[in-house]
Amino acid sequence: MDSVRFLADSSSDGVRERDFIVGEIPGVLWSPAVAGGPTPLVLMGHGGGQHKKTPAQVARARDNVVKWGFSVVAIDAPGHGDRPRRAVDDQARAELRQAMTDGDSAGVASVSARYGATLAEQAVPEWQLILKVFQDLPEIGPEAPIGYGGGITLGTGIGIPLVAAEPRIRAAIFGGGFVVGESLIEAARRITVPVQFLLPWDDQHVDRQSALDLFDAFGSAEKTLHANPGDHRNIRWYGLDEAFLSRHL
Amino acid sequence: MDSVRFLADSSSDGVRERDFIVGEIPGVLWSPAVAGGPTPLVLMGHGGGQHKKTPAQVARARDNVVKWGFSVVAIDAPGHGDRPRRAVDDQARAELRQAMTDGDSAGVASVSARYGATLAEQAVPEWQLILKVFQDLPEIGPEAPIGYGGGITLGTGIGIPLVAAEPRIRAAIFGGGFVVGESLIEAARRITVPVQFLLPWDDQHVDRQSALDLFDAFGSAEKTLHANPGDHRNIRWYGLDEAFLSRHL
Repeated sequence: MDSVRFLADSSSDGVRERDFIVGEIPGVLWSPAVAGGPTPLVLMGHGGGQHKKTPAQVARARDNVVKWGFSVVAIDAPGHGDRPRRAVDDQARAELRQAMTDGDSAGVASVSARYGATLAEQAVPEWQLILKVFQDLPEIGPEAPIGYGGGITLGTGIGIPLVAAEPRIRAAIFGGGFVVGESLIEAARRITVPVQFLLPWDDQHVDRQSALDLFDAFGSAEKTLHANPGDHRNIRWYGLDEAFLSRHL
Repeated sequence: MDSVRFLADSSSDGVRERDFIVGEIPGVLWSPAVAGGPTPLVLMGHGGGQHKKTPAQVARARDNVVKWGFSVVAIDAPGHGDRPRRAVDDQARAELRQAMTDGDSAGVASVSARYGATLAEQAVPEWQLILKVFQDLPEIGPEAPIGYGGGITLGTGIGIPLVAAEPRIRAAIFGGGFVVGESLIEAARRITVPVQFLLPWDDQHVDRQSALDLFDAFGSAEKTLHANPGDHRNIRWYGLDEAFLSRHL
């Protein structure tokens, strides 16, 4: 039975940051530096080609700890960050680079959708293992409310099937800049918890209509679409419902 | 030169409510019961077939006074509320009723767009007169920041050309459930102040794509699309950026 092994451990500005490994999955846990009993747990998924500690994700995680008293966990997706790259990863990246060089949007879309679905298939049970292991920790506990805290592109491509499969997750943030395949639409239809959906309105790599179709597909009675101008690399979010997770966890 | 003539005057729960008339335009002004100097001024436009004191609008207006210390002004649109109905109003209403009875969506859209544009043409200079008159009042004053506080259907059909024409308005809320004509799209393109755009996601009387096109058309660098499930009569807004106007006024 896998359990968590903590590695580096540091605290700054009220946030404790611990690297860990569960089986072969490397991750990081951010939590209040002064522990005050069990906290809600927020899962964050990084974007395609990124890793668990990209500056934007670290900033969002720390913000969640400081503002709302959550614990936040991020892991490297298969083939990403500190995990070994496999032939499938190298091939997908090469194909993506080539399609981008060729200005072949349909190619980018098709490789992304296929590769994203492959990664999600592996990542969903990994996240479920992480949940199990962390619920065994006294500082989280079996009753901790759990939310999916978002992440663009791959973070949403993995997050949607995860939330669809995982009744322990009570609310989810998904967001922009990903390629939508039919399997993602089907997973979205099975989601019924409150959803916040962040859409960069002007993403040149994403068909806007496919993102709107994805929002439309969520089975949730409570769902919010929030769009601001910009693409997923150059967007300034404003007027966001920042208390969304805290209302539901 | 027109000026404001105040009629009924009452206060409750921290809000002073005064009916007024400017020329032939009846309106209502809500303001803090305890006056503390000039306040920002928020304009609210009622929906088609409605009037200045519908319960939902009164509630939103009072909320703006209590939460943000704004003054809020609403007037009856031409042919609405306490204003005389003219032949053009009776005819449009009869045509709308008939188109709805016939289930003729294209007819509803065409009558609404035409009637709305006619009303806006008259209502925009009326609103500009109201602004002029209220800026002459010491409790508002010539320096008061001014915002358009929204209103569905006709409130947006009039509000968009008003905000496009009126440089004194610094930020605007528009929202759902209206029929979008080409003149509205053109006016939206001329708007550059921050916009919050509220879209009921499932309005059976409104083509969703036309509403998305309208959001797309706003010339504002800062604009937010906020969508929740429901149609414009049965929608519960949540996760709204309620501080939007207060950030800009």
